[in-house]
Amino acid sequence: MISDRAAIADLYGEYGGLLDTGDYEGWLGLFAAECRYTVMPWENYRQGLPSGLIFCDSRAVLEDRIMALREANKYNIHWDRHVIGLPRMIGDAGAEISIEAPFAVYQSDQEGISRLFATGLYCDRIISEAGGLKFRDKTVLLDTFAVPSLLATPL
Amino acid sequence: MISDRAAIADLYGEYGGLLDTGDYEGWLGLFAAECRYTVMPWENYRQGLPSGLIFCDSRAVLEDRIMALREANKYNIHWDRHVIGLPRMIGDAGAEISIEAPFAVYQSDQEGISRLFATGLYCDRIISEAGGLKFRDKTVLLDTFAVPSLLATPL
Amino acid sequence: MISDRAAIADLYGEYGGLLDTGDYEGWLGLFAAECRYTVMPWENYRQGLPSGLIFCDSRAVLEDRIMALREANKYNIHWDRHVIGLPRMIGDAGAEISIEAPFAVYQSDQEGISRLFATGLYCDRIISEAGGLKFRDKTVLLDTFAVPSLLATPL
Repeated sequence: MISDRAAIADLYGEYGGLLDTGDYEGWLGLFAAECRYTVMPWENYRQGLPSGLIFCDSRAVLEDRIMALREANKYNIHWDRHVIGLPRMIGDAGAEISIEAPFAVYQSDQEGISRLFATGLYCDRIISEAGGLKFRDKTVLLDTFAVPSLLATPL
Repeated sequence: MISDRAAIADLYGEYGGLLDTGDYEGWLGLFAAECRYTVMPWENYRQGLPSGLIFCDSRAVLEDRIMALREANKYNIHWDRHVIGLPRMIGDAGAEISIEAPFAVYQSDQEGISRLFATGLYCDRIISEAGGLKFRDKTVLLDTFAVPSLLATPL
Repeated sequence: MISDRAAIADLYGEYGGLLDTGDYEGWLGLFAAECRYTVMPWENYRQGLPSGLIFCDSRAVLEDRIMALREANKYNIHWDRHVIGLPRMIGDAGAEISIEAPFAVYQSDQEGISRLFATGLYCDRIISEAGGLKFRDKTVLLDTFAVPSLLATPL
């Protein structure tokens, strides 16, 4: 059943864990074959402005993007830590569910100093594919958009 | 069953999500018809001092209070983000359960800068009413009490 | 069943809650009779360096350690708040499971000012013992290691 709570919690646990260990291949595996990934300031979303900081409307574009971030991060060494709050069921259309989950991302530098990097809300549409839950559409609504190095970190 | 883990996690997911989207009507709907809502510094609680920052001993008082906060926030524009940790079962008296859950609330301003606003612990008594879990008594114990704009933000 | 999701979530909820209320006896009760508890910078772990900030390879050593921390905290009064993210199943070997969970710890001082204290990842091996899930091996990988008062706080 797609709306199985444990499977949903696992999906979000995997999402944060794979990003934080830098396992981008594994992370890509959480998205459906046809997927969309958007990062935008919450304020743009509220006002209906379409412009996002990142917009990937296919898996190929998402793969390209994550490889570029990976490259950029060779020169900006830090460690991320995602703390994702309890997922909230927004809608259940049978074959697809809508989930929202709040998050905070912390970044630590090579000196071992940790800072809050960004907070926001995941607004996701999830389907079942290839035997597991996958993100069909993931929208990362950012509370924090005044961050210089923002684009170098997957959220 | 009132002690159903998924339903409890959902209740806390809803609680934070409704506050962060500003859906105060929905948020009020998470409280029982007879309810109590208290916000107090952890230190007062520890010393047995009754004084709280907010004390609402009926739903009508809680409704008034939330409307006042809403009004105040027109002049203090910011976005909250609740990240609530795993709920912990403290007691199960059959018709009523006691749950504690830690939380961190972040606030972002119109410039897109996010800051830790407060941390604390929810100490709650929960009943089943009108087909769902509801807060009979919610006590918000604040670690952070040195915050000037505190009273303008529901926690 | 040892891989029961609700029991795992409960274990982590208990872990953070007992530390934050200073119930160190209860906290020790979450460890198996034979256990190991290590706190080390993430970077050391990544490079295969064994040196940790705390290394307790038996329950007796862990008990000693926690009593020392307790003593030290009489002179460094603060309150901790653990916000632990969704646990992630890494491996299931039947009698033992491997779980990872991200965390953020906040510290509040007597003035009521809260700060981010540390972030990191719990990398744990868990067994079933005495009717409950217990930590057989708990490794706390710290993103944050530039903290003067670090050793005085259990993580």
